[in-house]
Amino acid sequence: MTTTANSGWTLNELAERAGAELKGDGSRRVTGFSTLTDAGSDDLAFLANPAYLKHLTATNAAAVLVSPEHADQCPTNALVLKNPYLGFALLSSCFARTPQQATVGIHPSACVSESAVIGENVSIAAHTVIGDNVRIGDGSIIGPGCFIGDDSELGADALLYANVTIYHGVMIGERVIIHSSAVVGGDGFGFAHDGRQWVKIAQIGGVTIGNDVEIGASSSIDRGALGDTIIGNDVKIDSQVQVAHNVQVGDHSALAGCVGVAGSTKIGRGCLLGGGVGLGGHIEIADGVTLTGMSMVTNSIPEPGVYSSGTGVLPNAQWRKSVVRFRQLDSLAKRIGKLEKS
Amino acid sequence: MTTTANSGWTLNELAERAGAELKGDGSRRVTGFSTLTDAGSDDLAFLANPAYLKHLTATNAAAVLVSPEHADQCPTNALVLKNPYLGFALLSSCFARTPQQATVGIHPSACVSESAVIGENVSIAAHTVIGDNVRIGDGSIIGPGCFIGDDSELGADALLYANVTIYHGVMIGERVIIHSSAVVGGDGFGFAHDGRQWVKIAQIGGVTIGNDVEIGASSSIDRGALGDTIIGNDVKIDSQVQVAHNVQVGDHSALAGCVGVAGSTKIGRGCLLGGGVGLGGHIEIADGVTLTGMSMVTNSIPEPGVYSSGTGVLPNAQWRKSVVRFRQLDSLAKRIGKLEKS
Amino acid sequence: MTTTANSGWTLNELAERAGAELKGDGSRRVTGFSTLTDAGSDDLAFLANPAYLKHLTATNAAAVLVSPEHADQCPTNALVLKNPYLGFALLSSCFARTPQQATVGIHPSACVSESAVIGENVSIAAHTVIGDNVRIGDGSIIGPGCFIGDDSELGADALLYANVTIYHGVMIGERVIIHSSAVVGGDGFGFAHDGRQWVKIAQIGGVTIGNDVEIGASSSIDRGALGDTIIGNDVKIDSQVQVAHNVQVGDHSALAGCVGVAGSTKIGRGCLLGGGVGLGGHIEIADGVTLTGMSMVTNSIPEPGVYSSGTGVLPNAQWRKSVVRFRQLDSLAKRIGKLEKS
Repeated sequence: MTTTANSGWTLNELAERAGAELKGDGSRRVTGFSTLTDAGSDDLAFLANPAYLKHLTATNAAAVLVSPEHADQCPTNALVLKNPYLGFALLSSCFARTPQQATVGIHPSACVSESAVIGENVSIAAHTVIGDNVRIGDGSIIGPGCFIGDDSELGADALLYANVTIYHGVMIGERVIIHSSAVVGGDGFGFAHDGRQWVKIAQIGGVTIGNDVEIGASSSIDRGALGDTIIGNDVKIDSQVQVAHNVQVGDHSALAGCVGVAGSTKIGRGCLLGGGVGLGGHIEIADGVTLTGMSMVTNSIPEPGVYSSGTGVLPNAQWRKSVVRFRQLDSLAKRIGKLEKS
Repeated sequence: MTTTANSGWTLNELAERAGAELKGDGSRRVTGFSTLTDAGSDDLAFLANPAYLKHLTATNAAAVLVSPEHADQCPTNALVLKNPYLGFALLSSCFARTPQQATVGIHPSACVSESAVIGENVSIAAHTVIGDNVRIGDGSIIGPGCFIGDDSELGADALLYANVTIYHGVMIGERVIIHSSAVVGGDGFGFAHDGRQWVKIAQIGGVTIGNDVEIGASSSIDRGALGDTIIGNDVKIDSQVQVAHNVQVGDHSALAGCVGVAGSTKIGRGCLLGGGVGLGGHIEIADGVTLTGMSMVTNSIPEPGVYSSGTGVLPNAQWRKSVVRFRQLDSLAKRIGKLEKS
Repeated sequence: MTTTANSGWTLNELAERAGAELKGDGSRRVTGFSTLTDAGSDDLAFLANPAYLKHLTATNAAAVLVSPEHADQCPTNALVLKNPYLGFALLSSCFARTPQQATVGIHPSACVSESAVIGENVSIAAHTVIGDNVRIGDGSIIGPGCFIGDDSELGADALLYANVTIYHGVMIGERVIIHSSAVVGGDGFGFAHDGRQWVKIAQIGGVTIGNDVEIGASSSIDRGALGDTIIGNDVKIDSQVQVAHNVQVGDHSALAGCVGVAGSTKIGRGCLLGGGVGLGGHIEIADGVTLTGMSMVTNSIPEPGVYSSGTGVLPNAQWRKSVVRFRQLDSLAKRIGKLEKS
């Protein structure tokens, strides 16, 4: 898919927006953003990873975001800045396609409670249902087929795509983006056993979500049992993530796809959780912890750093042998000890 | 979020409901449920884990659920019972906020087939679609944006939150709770290869779900290929869980978040599967098996007990060394054997 | 659930359809498909796995799909063909129940943009929303509560179940099946850090999906950051799968439940990924690679074959010992080396 902005942008405009120094023709107009290799003659591209330096000289791009050290090797107009990847982020939105024609106003098929307080310039799409006493901040866009339960609040400039479900009593900050099929505020998984069967623990807490949070497609954030599940400011949550009841996620942390966090666990600030990471319940992860993909964490991690688990993939025949030996590891270790003593 | 019941409950009422012995002022009225540390002066709290005993003496709660052995240390009114956690479960619903104003009746925007049989005191919310010959039991609440396919049945007192999808031919018992974005009855993953491409195996079975089952947000339970996928009574399924075709889950088992169960596997009664556990296909798990989080199970487990897999998280540098050695485990073991013989 | 086709099929009709040789009464009519053990006297069954040979002689089925080598042991009418499992697939659709009464036409409650181009014999169910410039191919069935964003295209004979979300700019081939709560085209997980907070990278690519693709319930396929996420022809994706931005999946590959694929990774043709497999980002998996369930792949796999990771499940007490020793593996290996030198 080639992406185009209708009228495009001049390199002067883009340089200013990215805080970059322009080397070349500032009146040159670009209409798309692409990779160095795929870029056409009206596209902007970027070089962030030096491994792709070889593609720089051959690019057909109209202009390239580069760092000062690579600026001389740029065969075309250059937007020079310290962090070209950040420049890519800052300029990417210039070339984004509108997700949908968000007409301001409430679609006639939407069902909005009379007690809901809807801000200015809000768009509520077809078949969306808004409960009692809901508050929606100015400039918010609510896609089709969404549900927002009683007493929940969305700050200004929220963007909910189609078929998002927000339960009752969920407090959400400003500039939050939530993708389709995501669920915020479903019941946490709490039951007591009476010796015969499970007795449900009503989940009477809620969910509090800070500003600038993004939640990916089909992710779920459960409401608290007592007290709230809390997602800090600027937390980024990918698709297929499960956040259980009473979890707390610190500001600026990022949870990649398929992460699961069990109940009452606290994740610090600025943590990075790779895809498929699993955190057990009732543990604490310090600020600044990075967990590589599919790590299994059953105890608290009190110090920042990079942590991992798992065995890495092997040809099946070799893996089978290692798995058998893994089972024997304790006796193997004891046999080594015995040999050392003899 | 502070949760309040409008009028609250007297301690006499709560003691009777929980089967607890009251020590203190039975006419005292409480309006919320909270933790020992967060409780305000009108809140009920509980002490289940002795590790939190230190918080008991300092609590501001109006009353606390405690076991007989801790009753003397309770600084305020005490509801004394053997299992305070069970008491918490039993009383929690007194303080639950209504999920939504479930008005009895069918919302004008809902599409209900003329051949559907709707019980008494049923609430069907906006934009929900009910297929032909569907039967919905008395007292059921179906949230907005749900779909229930032809010939499916829901027993009495079902609670479906917004945007739940039930396919055709799904039989569901009484008092079932299903959370948003969950899908029951989607096709199992069945294909035969004709040497050139995949040929779909029509999934002509259904799903049978017992009484008192709860299914979490965004979970999926696939229909059977031939015969039904079967979920027993009182089975509790958390969010982001995948149950494949023709799986059978025994009564009273609980599957925590992100569990995946491959096709035709049988899980016994009273099993506990931690978060992220994966079960291979065509295996049998005995009654009373507990699997800790992220366990990978590829063979049947014929005996009850607690089972685990994985390596636990390590600092990345240390983990890298262990992973290299894991690959060499078989040769290391052989070298030990050789040393022992020499 | 017993599944029945209203009128059923004669064995002559079925033999012709499966390319099988009939041994027995070709005018015999069967009305259902079942397993050898569950089959009633009007049912068809099949024997694919020799382990079930013992059930063949005792079956009550009206007819059985068998391979030539087992035909003599069939106690009833036999449909003889080389690959009975393929025969099962080919005939299963004869006994499938219609998923819903798909009335051709647009339900009055659906909101279809005037600029959308809807093919012939298309069914669009209640409360579905179709954006501007969407194109939907002939014979497609779109279930209730779906959303299709601006400029997206569905080829002929698409089948979307209830509550599917397709974002804008998604190109989908012919004969594609997408299950409920699935999301195609949500934003990839892309952010740059400006030293203070995350800056969103607008995901300005799209998604391109080939012909004959199936996508399971609650799965998500993210749109590309620059350029498209690409799913080849005849790719089969199970439930709860996450495919990140700019991933490419080769023709005929199959991804089982709970698989997660990180960004920009390329999966070859004819790969089989077991349940819960996780692939790191920016790697390449060769054609013909099979990964067993829950494998963790952090590096490219350049050769076809079967690969695995993980440790397999152990009784918890034994596992705890092995985990401790796994941590010590490098020092254990060095101690062996030392012993060998002494």
